[in-house]
Amino acid sequence: MNAGELLSLCKRRGFIWPSFEIYGGVAGMYDYGPLGSVLKENIIRLWRQAYRYGEGFTEIDSVTINPEAVFKASGHLDEFSDCIVYCNECGEPFRADHLVARLHPNPDTLDAKSLKELIREHDVTCPECGGTLGDVEEFNLMFRTFIGPGSSRIGYLRPETAQGIFVNFPNLYRYNREKLPLGVIQQGRGYRNEISPRQGMIRLREFNMMEVELFVDPENKTWPRYPFVKEEMLRLIPNDGVERVMSLDGAVREGVIANEVLAYFIWLTKDLLVKMGVDPARLHFRQHLSEEMAHYATDCWDAEVLISYGWTEIVGIADRGSWDLTQHAKWSHEDMTHFKRYDEPHEVEQKVIKAKHSKLGPRFKEDAKEITNLIESCQAEDIKDGALQIEHNGKPLTISDEFFEVETLIRKVSGEKVIPHVIEPSYGLDRIFYTILEHAYHKRDDDYTVLKLKPILAPIKVGVFPLMARDGLDEKAQEIFRLLMDAGIEAYYDDSGSIGKRYARMDEIGTPWCVTIDYETLEEGRGKKDTVTIRDRDSTKQIRVPIDKLVKTIHTMLNGVNFESI
Amino acid sequence: MNAGELLSLCKRRGFIWPSFEIYGGVAGMYDYGPLGSVLKENIIRLWRQAYRYGEGFTEIDSVTINPEAVFKASGHLDEFSDCIVYCNECGEPFRADHLVARLHPNPDTLDAKSLKELIREHDVTCPECGGTLGDVEEFNLMFRTFIGPGSSRIGYLRPETAQGIFVNFPNLYRYNREKLPLGVIQQGRGYRNEISPRQGMIRLREFNMMEVELFVDPENKTWPRYPFVKEEMLRLIPNDGVERVMSLDGAVREGVIANEVLAYFIWLTKDLLVKMGVDPARLHFRQHLSEEMAHYATDCWDAEVLISYGWTEIVGIADRGSWDLTQHAKWSHEDMTHFKRYDEPHEVEQKVIKAKHSKLGPRFKEDAKEITNLIESCQAEDIKDGALQIEHNGKPLTISDEFFEVETLIRKVSGEKVIPHVIEPSYGLDRIFYTILEHAYHKRDDDYTVLKLKPILAPIKVGVFPLMARDGLDEKAQEIFRLLMDAGIEAYYDDSGSIGKRYARMDEIGTPWCVTIDYETLEEGRGKKDTVTIRDRDSTKQIRVPIDKLVKTIHTMLNGVNFESI
Repeated sequence: MNAGELLSLCKRRGFIWPSFEIYGGVAGMYDYGPLGSVLKENIIRLWRQAYRYGEGFTEIDSVTINPEAVFKASGHLDEFSDCIVYCNECGEPFRADHLVARLHPNPDTLDAKSLKELIREHDVTCPECGGTLGDVEEFNLMFRTFIGPGSSRIGYLRPETAQGIFVNFPNLYRYNREKLPLGVIQQGRGYRNEISPRQGMIRLREFNMMEVELFVDPENKTWPRYPFVKEEMLRLIPNDGVERVMSLDGAVREGVIANEVLAYFIWLTKDLLVKMGVDPARLHFRQHLSEEMAHYATDCWDAEVLISYGWTEIVGIADRGSWDLTQHAKWSHEDMTHFKRYDEPHEVEQKVIKAKHSKLGPRFKEDAKEITNLIESCQAEDIKDGALQIEHNGKPLTISDEFFEVETLIRKVSGEKVIPHVIEPSYGLDRIFYTILEHAYHKRDDDYTVLKLKPILAPIKVGVFPLMARDGLDEKAQEIFRLLMDAGIEAYYDDSGSIGKRYARMDEIGTPWCVTIDYETLEEGRGKKDTVTIRDRDSTKQIRVPIDKLVKTIHTMLNGVNFESI
Repeated sequence: MNAGELLSLCKRRGFIWPSFEIYGGVAGMYDYGPLGSVLKENIIRLWRQAYRYGEGFTEIDSVTINPEAVFKASGHLDEFSDCIVYCNECGEPFRADHLVARLHPNPDTLDAKSLKELIREHDVTCPECGGTLGDVEEFNLMFRTFIGPGSSRIGYLRPETAQGIFVNFPNLYRYNREKLPLGVIQQGRGYRNEISPRQGMIRLREFNMMEVELFVDPENKTWPRYPFVKEEMLRLIPNDGVERVMSLDGAVREGVIANEVLAYFIWLTKDLLVKMGVDPARLHFRQHLSEEMAHYATDCWDAEVLISYGWTEIVGIADRGSWDLTQHAKWSHEDMTHFKRYDEPHEVEQKVIKAKHSKLGPRFKEDAKEITNLIESCQAEDIKDGALQIEHNGKPLTISDEFFEVETLIRKVSGEKVIPHVIEPSYGLDRIFYTILEHAYHKRDDDYTVLKLKPILAPIKVGVFPLMARDGLDEKAQEIFRLLMDAGIEAYYDDSGSIGKRYARMDEIGTPWCVTIDYETLEEGRGKKDTVTIRDRDSTKQIRVPIDKLVKTIHTMLNGVNFESI
């Protein structure tokens, strides 16, 4: 299978459509069609379940247009850019690092100057027309707009949902009753004004993210459930490049993964992706090299999957340290700290300087009071060679230790302010969506396509078919369709074409079960009245169940019970 | 209660927060906090249930940045604007119609010229500094940006989600197997670059919409379920301004509502809003006056609610006719029609013009063939006074009927192409959210605040309290918290402060039930072991239930069974 084949199925059957096709399309933009939007919604639901119900995180939903101040603080205004180069002949813009992809192991780590040199050195020309290439420049990837009338208030479409969580930290911290850990999730749009996107759903200008920001005590980077999963195995590629299969605890003890909380959320990510249908044999976690790490991260692991574009990042799990909150505290002058209360108040020794009034008075006369204040505002650390340097009436003045003494006080301190660290598992929803489809894509022996989607994710759970569209079979089938829909089970009624064709249509979009209403459903006396067949997508086997047990049977299978054991 | 009181509760308890507060905020932008995001999600779920499961509509999710072509076609580039006026002294921008609100009954229907005159005539000055006002100009309300590098490709943030559905009509129509009616829903962000928003959540620059576009046969504007609800009563204010309570069918028969399908979705909207907790006594439907109707609508009704800002539109239900598809067909040159197949092929008379070769040859010689073609490309309607006017070699030429005859042919036609009409119920999610909170807001006799949210919408369903945070009560309470969360019931564990205080905290955020774990829960021998109390928010009554029936009891109540009958 190649990406084109899958994208064509997706388009034909209503999973995704290139946006604005009637106007010639816009590169890097896709719309989710009727099946795709439900599959996407189901992915979000599983992710929410894991974090909100499973781990007790809270969710927020912040706006997508952000004022410039946010991105000054976050670093995006300076750092969120790609190097661009235009063809001198045809004017086409390119990502400079893409043009030298074969000439350097990590071209995206190079700056504009190095890229330009590499292009000159190797006589790289325009891949479209063969023309010479111009200068390499930085191009900021945020979409810019103006908030309100005039052009005084610049706004940007957010490149990540994370900033909406960071700027709300004071609100979130109060909501959490000033306790850590504090876990917050957000899903929604992110924007990246790609120079020249060309990789289907992998490189989008408008994309969907599911982000998690976990604020933790920097000195307590573990997680309550860590002990229960620490022996689970992960396929890791640490930054030495050598793939290893290690347990979480082994990786943490050997210093491969920085800490337990990071390891826990790498594991949770693996668990979640596999539950969604990502093939574990085509999934590993790769640690960032120091030069490819974002400006804010202290350790970062990518969940990478093997798809037809090669190994591709679909989730990033980073320890961002205190970067984000420190930056926003600095630029907003707001308090972004956690008050870490000690179990017992600590006794803290404090050295304070006391002026000797009896010596100062006779020596400095009317200036004595002012000099007393100046002396006592000094710290013990300021004493050099037994003397203090102060400034009095604009002139430097040396005060020897005959004029002061150092006292040691004991103070009780109930806690300290710390800037929380941030652990961020950030999920690329569109890439996950695409991977799930690729890994679900199968050709059966008869060459029919079947999407082996996990039932819980399938956009349509049940196809409902009358054997024939007559003799009351169709009315009965409509009734059963209604019964399922009213129970919240997404169903699809189809009475056109042979049953085989209808099965094939459902297989192709990943519908796990098909219910057929036949003459036995209506027939008195043979003990099969009011029963229907359920046909299983993956085994193509059939069973017969009473209509009044149908909803329960579907629910049971949706909860993970295998068709064979029904 | 006033809006300020409610907004302050919302902020304090984590429903909504003004966006970017740490940077001084941005007018017209709010973030949904932990409670608000779940309430919002629950509103969306009810709406989805009604349309997707209830009416069989499909859902899509299209991108928010749209290229200029879309809004040329939709009319937003020309029409989506407000009149702006700046103060000559302080430079503050204002919406001109807001400044003359008391001087005209419908100031938003006035153009820039009339607004300017009204301002001059009444010497209206700047409400901020009293300065004189400048010229009145049109200000387009779309946020503008550039797609890709350079400034050649203009994009706008969508002012409505509807256009994403219209431009996908060919895809959606194929997905629906080329049948009508075709119902499509979409929810997501909309953007409107307000000049100077000042009304809390009512006037936002970035908002949330839930839109429904129903494509129907222009000659068949009814709905299968209409007969079942046609006797239901609606509170209507037709465009004569006189409020009337009428049945759906009465309103349609008297021509008050344009057609049955429009009436049905007005009723569905009412039903949905009331299910969400909108007070029916503070809800009516008002018909647009012809001068306030949008450029595309042929009939439009607003669901208006009474809140502290006065009667406020929260839903618009419009018959947009064929406007949208006609416009996009015109600008994109794509086919946006429905092929309406007749039950039986129709025989259609067609008049065609046949040239008389025997006459044309002798008269026109070598030009005869060309003139034959010109004649036969004319329609029967082109014949004036028995003659055709054609143009030959750049010169007009009159051809009398001695050179042609009109033949009548009978053709079999299996159907015809029609441009579907669009019925659009468009829901303002943020306004609905706000209304639900206002209508749920109550002061109890003891002056405590209680949000009487519908249980199905409440962000937290159950508060879980150990009577004391000791003696194993807290462990048991944590267990019950886990039990509920694993069953997908959003719960909140609280062990701090008196039980009364904890009840009050839950009442204030609308939590319908609180479960308390007390010593009897743990105590052997008195028959109350493993039971807990459930306390009802609205009646403040309590019952005792076994822990193993707790999840079922909560589910039963969530499905609408009253606490009193449990």
